[in-house]
Amino acid sequence: MNDNPLIPMGQRAKKAARALASASTETKNAFLHHLADGLIDHKAAILAANERDIAEGRANGLAENLIDRMTITEARLRGFAADARNVALLPDPIGREFDSRRLPNGLRVSRRRTPLGVIGLIYEARPNVTIDIAALCIKTGNAVIMRGGKEIRRSNMAILDVIHKALTRVGLPADAVQYIENPDRALVGHLLKLHDYVDMIIPRGGAGLHKFCRENSTIPVITGGIGICHLYVDETANLDKALPIIHNAKTQRPSVCNSLDTLLVQQDIAADFLPRVVKRLAADGVTFRADETAMDILAGHEAVQPAGPADFDTEWLSLILGLRVVPGLDAAIDHIREHSTGHSDGILTENWSHAQRFLDEVDSSAVFVNASTRFNDGGQFGLGAEVAISTQKLHARGPMGLEELTTYKWIVLGDGHVRP
Amino acid sequence: MNDNPLIPMGQRAKKAARALASASTETKNAFLHHLADGLIDHKAAILAANERDIAEGRANGLAENLIDRMTITEARLRGFAADARNVALLPDPIGREFDSRRLPNGLRVSRRRTPLGVIGLIYEARPNVTIDIAALCIKTGNAVIMRGGKEIRRSNMAILDVIHKALTRVGLPADAVQYIENPDRALVGHLLKLHDYVDMIIPRGGAGLHKFCRENSTIPVITGGIGICHLYVDETANLDKALPIIHNAKTQRPSVCNSLDTLLVQQDIAADFLPRVVKRLAADGVTFRADETAMDILAGHEAVQPAGPADFDTEWLSLILGLRVVPGLDAAIDHIREHSTGHSDGILTENWSHAQRFLDEVDSSAVFVNASTRFNDGGQFGLGAEVAISTQKLHARGPMGLEELTTYKWIVLGDGHVRP
Repeated sequence: MNDNPLIPMGQRAKKAARALASASTETKNAFLHHLADGLIDHKAAILAANERDIAEGRANGLAENLIDRMTITEARLRGFAADARNVALLPDPIGREFDSRRLPNGLRVSRRRTPLGVIGLIYEARPNVTIDIAALCIKTGNAVIMRGGKEIRRSNMAILDVIHKALTRVGLPADAVQYIENPDRALVGHLLKLHDYVDMIIPRGGAGLHKFCRENSTIPVITGGIGICHLYVDETANLDKALPIIHNAKTQRPSVCNSLDTLLVQQDIAADFLPRVVKRLAADGVTFRADETAMDILAGHEAVQPAGPADFDTEWLSLILGLRVVPGLDAAIDHIREHSTGHSDGILTENWSHAQRFLDEVDSSAVFVNASTRFNDGGQFGLGAEVAISTQKLHARGPMGLEELTTYKWIVLGDGHVRP
Repeated sequence: MNDNPLIPMGQRAKKAARALASASTETKNAFLHHLADGLIDHKAAILAANERDIAEGRANGLAENLIDRMTITEARLRGFAADARNVALLPDPIGREFDSRRLPNGLRVSRRRTPLGVIGLIYEARPNVTIDIAALCIKTGNAVIMRGGKEIRRSNMAILDVIHKALTRVGLPADAVQYIENPDRALVGHLLKLHDYVDMIIPRGGAGLHKFCRENSTIPVITGGIGICHLYVDETANLDKALPIIHNAKTQRPSVCNSLDTLLVQQDIAADFLPRVVKRLAADGVTFRADETAMDILAGHEAVQPAGPADFDTEWLSLILGLRVVPGLDAAIDHIREHSTGHSDGILTENWSHAQRFLDEVDSSAVFVNASTRFNDGGQFGLGAEVAISTQKLHARGPMGLEELTTYKWIVLGDGHVRP
């Protein structure tokens, strides 16, 4: 620990966190507006830095979907600025007292919401995350140490410059938002051991990053973002309503964690319904991995191929959909318990008891009846923002908003009270 | 992971957790009453097993305070049974829906409280913890895997027998409460890696155990229980009220985490007040470790000796009290920020602004004004029970009651809703 090269950064972050904890809502919102203004005022520098990152990425043969996520356009930059202003509009959770009570002995006890302190963020080459998380952390009075994908190093440095100017302008320490520039991967490991200074680690990336963080961190990690998501079509489902839900869950944005991966269909309706599903979704480019029973029904359809052994344990993140025919609700729940990552799972049914049993027995961050899994999102659920979607059970589960970047302390007010 | 010898235990616990999650409050409360009855009905077996543990402990030269904590008497057993019945009286947090809202699109969203799943408990030779945690876990629908101090192996096995009989009697799986009997220390490490089956680790023991868990666990750990606790006597304090508070915080139960370790006194009142503190507390056997200024004031008092370099970073857990004179509030807050473990810290003052600043700027699990630190306790705060006192910031901070053994899932009810 003592030779951790990030200790000075951790010390500066902890010191900055102390200033942030007592910053007023007005100051924090003023920062957010200066940040939004700054992104527009400095757009030339940001876009130029981003162009150099993109050029290097292309030269290195990065895939087009990665290049797209890295790319900042003027329109996107305006979107990022608007997002920062939206964070300013959200209520500040810090300082709110709750669970207040007066004990029989007259002692007054309450819980007061406070910042966590210092957040460690490890993420991929997505410049919007740099801005989003800086905005959400400052709004909640937290300092943050960021380590983003090296592919957008220049873009992030240009954005950091704007963030630091905005912090300075409102009298907050620039150390409130620090960035680990050195691309050496060993520094990720060092960040994960900085428990004397960092209170929470948020990994934003694939399953491998989450696993690495869980196995190597001495700091609490918010695990999530990996969604093998299911819908089960019960024999009583209104199939005319079910079809658009399935289409939406699979195709509305296939590259994200709450999109549909496996469709389970009750056997009595499979022969009628599966061909309708394939017809509707194949028209939009979806291909299918079907179990044996589904293959029998769909034989000869060019978009359908037999499911391989790992296909029901795969997060597709693309226009592929697993299909499985099950005898009924019990088998559907068993399949979900075995294969789900606990992110987003739903039932499509008109049967009241089946809906209740599914809600009771499926243990995922969000459980749906007759709705698309795509709704598992902080913005959609009315949280106003989203830090991440947690699939772990401690601290926060499902979409994390501003409140999930906070903790509380107990406030105890007495007048000479002693414990008998 | 695949050669972890505890995997079968983890699998059984996870299966039992599924049954517990849907157990009714009536069933869980019936278990608690059968447990209480069983402790009394089987008192002969439990006391005999405990006698053998105690005899072995004495033969091995265990310290008397440890022997005392290990000892079960008939009166203590009645107390344990009464505690189990009290848990039955507490409201069941499971199933409660909160933050319910109807979104503009008509989607109904709420959070529903659910069990965490499987708890891993690592603790010392305290038989009451075996009973307490089993009661609290079953009440909240959680399975538990326990690993207690080997010194009370026989006592714990006798208690486990009663727990298993009570579980079976109400139709709950005996695997809901499992105990790692093998004293091999390597199994603690294996338990900490059982992340596919265990959702939360609760260490109940000293700083070394907490550190070991934090550094080796791939499962979220609740860190806590270590309290270097402070009271600061401001120049405006009502000293007649301050003295009993300090006496209570230090002497009412010196061996526990929320007892007072260091007293900070503002310099203007030190010459008057410190001799009063020493006189009152020395009469009850307290000895003192004083900084230089305090030594000058207290010179010649036999109960007072100069503080060594590590004394202000020591959790005394005994009748020793650190004394330090500080120039004022800022220095007091700085001292606490540097030396506190974030457990329980308070100010004794009549100055409104000083009290507010102390509450704002001291970042501990409980912050006190004019009250004894001994109140930082689940029972005292009205939680009805206490699993542990957390000094970390995620999930739970301060005393953990039943609700802190739960998580939530999002329930989303639609009628053909798709995301635009």
